[in-house]
Amino acid sequence: MQTSRDASAEDEAPALQPTGRATVPALEALLYRPLPVLDHGFVRVIDYMGDDAAVVQGARVSYGRGTKTVSQDRALIAYLMRHRHTSPFELCEIKLHVKLPIFIARQWIRHRTANVNEISARYSVLDREFYIPAPDHLAAQSADNRQGRGAVLEGAEAADVLDMLQADCRRAYRHYERLMNRTEDGAVIEEGRQGLARELARMNLTLNTYTQWYWKVDLHNLMHFLALRADPHAQYEIRAYAEVLIDVLHRWVPMTAAAFEEYRRGAYALSATALAVVRRLLAGEAVTAETSGLSKREWRELMTALERPGE
Amino acid sequence: MQTSRDASAEDEAPALQPTGRATVPALEALLYRPLPVLDHGFVRVIDYMGDDAAVVQGARVSYGRGTKTVSQDRALIAYLMRHRHTSPFELCEIKLHVKLPIFIARQWIRHRTANVNEISARYSVLDREFYIPAPDHLAAQSADNRQGRGAVLEGAEAADVLDMLQADCRRAYRHYERLMNRTEDGAVIEEGRQGLARELARMNLTLNTYTQWYWKVDLHNLMHFLALRADPHAQYEIRAYAEVLIDVLHRWVPMTAAAFEEYRRGAYALSATALAVVRRLLAGEAVTAETSGLSKREWRELMTALERPGE
Amino acid sequence: MQTSRDASAEDEAPALQPTGRATVPALEALLYRPLPVLDHGFVRVIDYMGDDAAVVQGARVSYGRGTKTVSQDRALIAYLMRHRHTSPFELCEIKLHVKLPIFIARQWIRHRTANVNEISARYSVLDREFYIPAPDHLAAQSADNRQGRGAVLEGAEAADVLDMLQADCRRAYRHYERLMNRTEDGAVIEEGRQGLARELARMNLTLNTYTQWYWKVDLHNLMHFLALRADPHAQYEIRAYAEVLIDVLHRWVPMTAAAFEEYRRGAYALSATALAVVRRLLAGEAVTAETSGLSKREWRELMTALERPGE
Amino acid sequence: MQTSRDASAEDEAPALQPTGRATVPALEALLYRPLPVLDHGFVRVIDYMGDDAAVVQGARVSYGRGTKTVSQDRALIAYLMRHRHTSPFELCEIKLHVKLPIFIARQWIRHRTANVNEISARYSVLDREFYIPAPDHLAAQSADNRQGRGAVLEGAEAADVLDMLQADCRRAYRHYERLMNRTEDGAVIEEGRQGLARELARMNLTLNTYTQWYWKVDLHNLMHFLALRADPHAQYEIRAYAEVLIDVLHRWVPMTAAAFEEYRRGAYALSATALAVVRRLLAGEAVTAETSGLSKREWRELMTALERPGE
Repeated sequence: MQTSRDASAEDEAPALQPTGRATVPALEALLYRPLPVLDHGFVRVIDYMGDDAAVVQGARVSYGRGTKTVSQDRALIAYLMRHRHTSPFELCEIKLHVKLPIFIARQWIRHRTANVNEISARYSVLDREFYIPAPDHLAAQSADNRQGRGAVLEGAEAADVLDMLQADCRRAYRHYERLMNRTEDGAVIEEGRQGLARELARMNLTLNTYTQWYWKVDLHNLMHFLALRADPHAQYEIRAYAEVLIDVLHRWVPMTAAAFEEYRRGAYALSATALAVVRRLLAGEAVTAETSGLSKREWRELMTALERPGE
Repeated sequence: MQTSRDASAEDEAPALQPTGRATVPALEALLYRPLPVLDHGFVRVIDYMGDDAAVVQGARVSYGRGTKTVSQDRALIAYLMRHRHTSPFELCEIKLHVKLPIFIARQWIRHRTANVNEISARYSVLDREFYIPAPDHLAAQSADNRQGRGAVLEGAEAADVLDMLQADCRRAYRHYERLMNRTEDGAVIEEGRQGLARELARMNLTLNTYTQWYWKVDLHNLMHFLALRADPHAQYEIRAYAEVLIDVLHRWVPMTAAAFEEYRRGAYALSATALAVVRRLLAGEAVTAETSGLSKREWRELMTALERPGE
Repeated sequence: MQTSRDASAEDEAPALQPTGRATVPALEALLYRPLPVLDHGFVRVIDYMGDDAAVVQGARVSYGRGTKTVSQDRALIAYLMRHRHTSPFELCEIKLHVKLPIFIARQWIRHRTANVNEISARYSVLDREFYIPAPDHLAAQSADNRQGRGAVLEGAEAADVLDMLQADCRRAYRHYERLMNRTEDGAVIEEGRQGLARELARMNLTLNTYTQWYWKVDLHNLMHFLALRADPHAQYEIRAYAEVLIDVLHRWVPMTAAAFEEYRRGAYALSATALAVVRRLLAGEAVTAETSGLSKREWRELMTALERPGE
Repeated sequence: MQTSRDASAEDEAPALQPTGRATVPALEALLYRPLPVLDHGFVRVIDYMGDDAAVVQGARVSYGRGTKTVSQDRALIAYLMRHRHTSPFELCEIKLHVKLPIFIARQWIRHRTANVNEISARYSVLDREFYIPAPDHLAAQSADNRQGRGAVLEGAEAADVLDMLQADCRRAYRHYERLMNRTEDGAVIEEGRQGLARELARMNLTLNTYTQWYWKVDLHNLMHFLALRADPHAQYEIRAYAEVLIDVLHRWVPMTAAAFEEYRRGAYALSATALAVVRRLLAGEAVTAETSGLSKREWRELMTALERPGE
């Protein structure tokens, strides 16, 4: 992982201290370093609690002394993930500092089982930073998927789009300063004016303005977030954060991350009808979309998952 | 309460049906009617579960058969509110349809113990509606309170502020349409262009654009929301919603609402030191800010609460 | 469904009232009626909010006006269930009165996203009612499954087991009364004694004593509870409640219940490796337990799911 | 704090490791040591995340760069506590191993915003340990407070109570072993018997049997738990745990703990009517119970809080 220059003065890494707590050297090496995402965003790991062994320990208090020798840690973690025994994963926790565009923050905050402290534009002035998509992410509306993206825009249309995006957020920010009668750095713009309250002036900003927050979540809920947001159907901009966090996951809890890949990200859920189709196919029956009992879309998705695209 | 003309076609009030459930005629009279808030917002009660009697019933399952005659319902509800026995209030639930500016939605969503379905700008095009403060809400930044508002802006400054607010959201919206190459109503703007994906185009909108959601919350968490958001320190724009909801509360659960006013909204919490100050004052001691043990701000607030502004 | 004679005097069905809210006649017919479970337990539906149409309505506020004609309600609900869009299901709510043995209540309460008001043994005296398994549920410890049940006990062992279970809870209850110096009905047992505080005396009761609570939960979390607790691996005693609640689900929200059966209860999750095995089998490869990459247990479970028990 | 001999072999303190995370030496000194509670219970701190500085850091991301010099950390923490800005306190987390009687575990678990892994009596055999109150905690039922305790039992009644409590849990445990046909240590009791499933046999245990769990909670929710459970109205047995945890709180986050004492534990909430009474008293009016507008109970409590017991 690459790290950006961007860093906050107020929460730099303290000197190393001895601790009796569970410690993960691979994650320690990442502490406080901004991992860049999009054009101005980042993720920084500020703190963490627990490791793979803490998951095992949590499971073993449930199973009691009788199970000490039953299984290796790796197998136990796989078992927990597979059977959705989620509570041992809730015993680990991670705290991140994230910088992200407001319209992505609005998606992210829908995950309610987490703790958040966001910079408040009632108290302070937001930074003059905006998300502008890179040219290869300027995607058209998908024609056949109501929420998806199609081909990348090109030529004059791409240029016009970039012009509008770049101009509007900058103008809105300049007016944000003029509304408050203060520059980003706090200087008065015009003597004799009072300046609109910050809590009102912010309404003039565009949704691609960057915000920041501390976000703390337990390992189970982090994986739930990642399963949804690292999915190919998720919006590219939040997926970019999820992918960085999946790297963090592998460093922090490698056994849990491996089980997550096997039983969650790489898994495929067969509906009752799709399970029947697979049984019929294995029994040698020539099942078609029409005789499958599935909708066309479900049939197509099942054939893709089974790598029978011709069907 | 006044109702606005604004109404959604798709969830009009159904014909009346008989039900064996707890029913509150005063709230039935309000069902589905938009209660106007701010310039384009509203709150509509879509559904509810329970009433004051359901709170009592929940408390009595806890107390068991022995307490049936102990107290009147009103006294029991007051007792529960006073001693923060919150679980009986969680047995009631209300579902609202709310239209509100995005920057207020971002405050509101911080209350996590609720259920939300918001209009998605990935799937559909947001309406061309923006919050513009009324002239008497165009407040200056407070000089002595970092998050508060001061005097109302006047003259040229007020005019400039309104001009900027009105122009920027409208320009951003026109460009939002041009980015998508579709008008608000779905008409193609320029043949031969693909249109940027909706999920990207939305980032050009300003934070005073209106959004909508269904919001469902239990009675305890509704009161917690109202205690914070109907407070004089809350931002005016969210307080406007909270005040409408307090009216709804009084119609829905009048005994609970009365207890809420007595023990929550109208209550005053004395810190350990402030309690000692009150005792000393009552004992005839001439306590001053300096001898109180309180900070200057706490002293001032206590004297205001005790209606001794001269101190 | 059968209903038991057991009924609480204090929350009988009120007279029918007209309401503008969503109403489900099939569930109205069940309101307040105790549905028997185990030997002395029951489930009663006390109140509910929403129906299948409320799920659709919640989804459509997310999708906005553009999607009104896209799909039938049934297909939309199936789509939501399949893609784990859980928030529209959270807009419905149900409130139950449940009577259940304490050791089952301890499993049940682990589902935290719900509201609970339980009878308090600090305030009142618990009923003299205990769960004693029916003879065909007196199962031995499973030899090969650490948490499971084996064959049903028979003969002298079964008789001894029943004797101990029946005697101990009754003796504990008699001593509970003597500790408090009060009978179940409140009569003083021995003049001149004070009686131990109820909050202490209860510690002498056994875990098969029945307790009662109001339990309120949203439709999404109800289905999550049912997916785990109606599973064949769940303990029989809690499964008995889950099965009654699945009947309630089908009456309340038939479309949602059908989607739940198709995509949740009847579904089968293939891990990444299991998906690869299915692809290889379909391509005609002779995969064995050894070449599958699966553990023995996973291989056995997969072959069972695919109805290839011989493998 | 004293530590008991009781310790679990499987999660002993690891060797000290260097960490870049926030570290609290006073809490490190306590890690993994069982702090005794009641006759066989304990609390052990297993892990923690954050410190007072982490609370400040969380608050400052909300306030932004402008507030760096505004206030000392102590004053900021006091401000947050006083104005119920709870989210910065949610950024700290603590993980405990607790051994406690089942009837207390049932009170404790009502605090839902926490993570729990409890020993499962489906998988393993519970220990032969029971809570028996010390003689000075054998309290009678309070005559005037439905949930409270009165005087301590004495003489023959106390002796009888202790006899019943001690005999019943022991007999129930012996039968628990005979039901399973296994001793606590796993030895077969009678050849040729199968033994009842553990998940059923446990129902014969009494509610004073000890259980164990890992309990993880954020600092805000820990203080909410402590405010309710260290209160004089809480049952003595859970208060005993809360009091040990308040000591832990002072070691872990001393500034936060001081603010908790000042604004939460030592605070007194005046209802709207009680606030009016205080104003009238300060203005020299001779208010009585009758003219106060308060109920008798509220009047008495207010006079006690104001140290005017004679009124």
